[in-house]
Amino acid sequence: MTFEEARAQFAVLERHAYLNAGTTGPLARSTTAAVVDAVERDASSGRSGSEWIERILAMREEARHGLAAVIGVEPELLALTDSTSRGCAIVVWGLGLTSDDEIVTTDQEHFGLIGSVHASGARVVVCQADEDAILAAVTPRTRLIATSHVLWTTGRRLDLNRLREGGVPLLIDGAQSAGAIEVDASAVDFYTVSPQKWLCAPEQTGGLYVRDPDRLHVAAPGHFAAASYEPTGAFQPKPGALRFDAGWTAAPTLAGLIAALATHPEWRYERAAAAAARCRELLEEIVDVVTPSGHSTLVSFRPPGEPAELVTKLDAAGVIVRELPGRNLVRASVGWWTSEDDLERLAAGLRG
Amino acid sequence: MTFEEARAQFAVLERHAYLNAGTTGPLARSTTAAVVDAVERDASSGRSGSEWIERILAMREEARHGLAAVIGVEPELLALTDSTSRGCAIVVWGLGLTSDDEIVTTDQEHFGLIGSVHASGARVVVCQADEDAILAAVTPRTRLIATSHVLWTTGRRLDLNRLREGGVPLLIDGAQSAGAIEVDASAVDFYTVSPQKWLCAPEQTGGLYVRDPDRLHVAAPGHFAAASYEPTGAFQPKPGALRFDAGWTAAPTLAGLIAALATHPEWRYERAAAAAARCRELLEEIVDVVTPSGHSTLVSFRPPGEPAELVTKLDAAGVIVRELPGRNLVRASVGWWTSEDDLERLAAGLRG
Repeated sequence: MTFEEARAQFAVLERHAYLNAGTTGPLARSTTAAVVDAVERDASSGRSGSEWIERILAMREEARHGLAAVIGVEPELLALTDSTSRGCAIVVWGLGLTSDDEIVTTDQEHFGLIGSVHASGARVVVCQADEDAILAAVTPRTRLIATSHVLWTTGRRLDLNRLREGGVPLLIDGAQSAGAIEVDASAVDFYTVSPQKWLCAPEQTGGLYVRDPDRLHVAAPGHFAAASYEPTGAFQPKPGALRFDAGWTAAPTLAGLIAALATHPEWRYERAAAAAARCRELLEEIVDVVTPSGHSTLVSFRPPGEPAELVTKLDAAGVIVRELPGRNLVRASVGWWTSEDDLERLAAGLRG
Repeated sequence: MTFEEARAQFAVLERHAYLNAGTTGPLARSTTAAVVDAVERDASSGRSGSEWIERILAMREEARHGLAAVIGVEPELLALTDSTSRGCAIVVWGLGLTSDDEIVTTDQEHFGLIGSVHASGARVVVCQADEDAILAAVTPRTRLIATSHVLWTTGRRLDLNRLREGGVPLLIDGAQSAGAIEVDASAVDFYTVSPQKWLCAPEQTGGLYVRDPDRLHVAAPGHFAAASYEPTGAFQPKPGALRFDAGWTAAPTLAGLIAALATHPEWRYERAAAAAARCRELLEEIVDVVTPSGHSTLVSFRPPGEPAELVTKLDAAGVIVRELPGRNLVRASVGWWTSEDDLERLAAGLRG
């Protein structure tokens, strides 16, 4: 698949310099078609019956295999969820933490992670978002390090192998990494995938890698958690991470997710990294880029004026980026589909 | 809207005697069209930007108002969820129960309810599914009665006003009632809505009524829970039940839900009750009907032979019902859209 062919999958790129996959990725025509086909089939044949169920179960396994492959883990250890918040909640509640326990996190996390972390009831220790500070914050009471692989604000990538030196379980938010950079999640205990971003899938999809399912309690069992159950609700969990599947996913959503996973060319990571580097190169001449070089596919920068105004101005010119509230930053998300023209439109918008 | 016009909204009814809204309802053409329109718009314009967000937030409020109206509560007290399991989990975790506490439930509940009830860590007291037995099971340790308004197995409707006499909070699973029979959920503390069933909406939608939001802890905050938050994840919750919104819902799903809520004629409850009564009348001559007369839109019956075989046989004749595993029952779901011909096809299938 050539770059032009691969890029041509996305209708939104015909008119827009769409640089916001860090919020939600572009939808390919094949993804839209799969959603439309599935909803029309549901409407004409009914959402019921063994054939329907079997098709949905088969799609779940196909999606599970696809997401697992993206982060380099065994499919049996990947639960299908519907969001990062859900993935994080499954972990923090499953650990059964109390106010005697501590979770170490950073000051650069999304509410999807820290909202769940706080709600766990454990004491939350917030430190700077670098490996040394995180490791220094670990105490004998630390039960979990919860942070991002790529920080959604600065685009900095944390070294997961370094973080393992803390000797405590790692919950890693993969929202800005899975599908954007090459990931080996098997290095950590828990890893979330947000397919609606860099994997260009429908929303209300998600993945959670659980390295050792037997050591995590099923705190909020969903539709697929139980192999069998008793009248009290006591249940025999499904094998592996299937017990953590967060609930039912509609056929159109599953069909869209599977189609989306098939849109990514083999050269995706190399091209995305090169496009991000090119973006830096163009932007460094104009603004203060805060993302460290070579870390991720995000390029965050401090604009000379008001971030919100800049985002609105760029939007009017068909250049889609986002601001990061309260941080005085604007963020461009650069995918394997991003063209030189997209980047030059961004640079021109910043200059003009 | 005449009966014929209202029924003609559903493509599946052209060929099938679709009697399984208790699993998932028929999808109207307008619902499918709304989903298709929204996903195509997302693909061409991008899932990003203030206009997109504002449209989604407006759709959330429209859906919230629509679901609240179905169960007769204030919209500010209705959280948008994505399933009954999620609604139940929000309640049982939010109550902060321990093994010293008891939850009274019945032996006729769906895993979506009792799975969450069990996972709460409270002691689960299972009793017969009638009001007297439930009230008799209440002790000073009882912190919650968790049961269904209409039991998914027998179709029996429980009297919510009687259950209030227990003097403990009531969590009511409305999966088989909301949209099927007239409901006033304001009588109870927590009430779940499963719009994919009798409201004919897309899956991954849901509602949870919370009578007193300030008295329930936000145990698993979703994307929309916080009005503001701190680096520790501590947050100021949104007003009312919005803090319990379970997470992001995609624009196509919201658009489908809103469209589905507009498909129901004013006479829906009367016609559904009449159709269910007619179904009983036809079936009582052939099989042992277990659903009490006048209780709900479910008609559950004990077939002479193997339930699974009967369901397969009926399916081959275009009559869609379901069996209830382990209970030796088959269940027909009768909606306001059900015709005399649908019911006669069912009766003929049972005779033949």
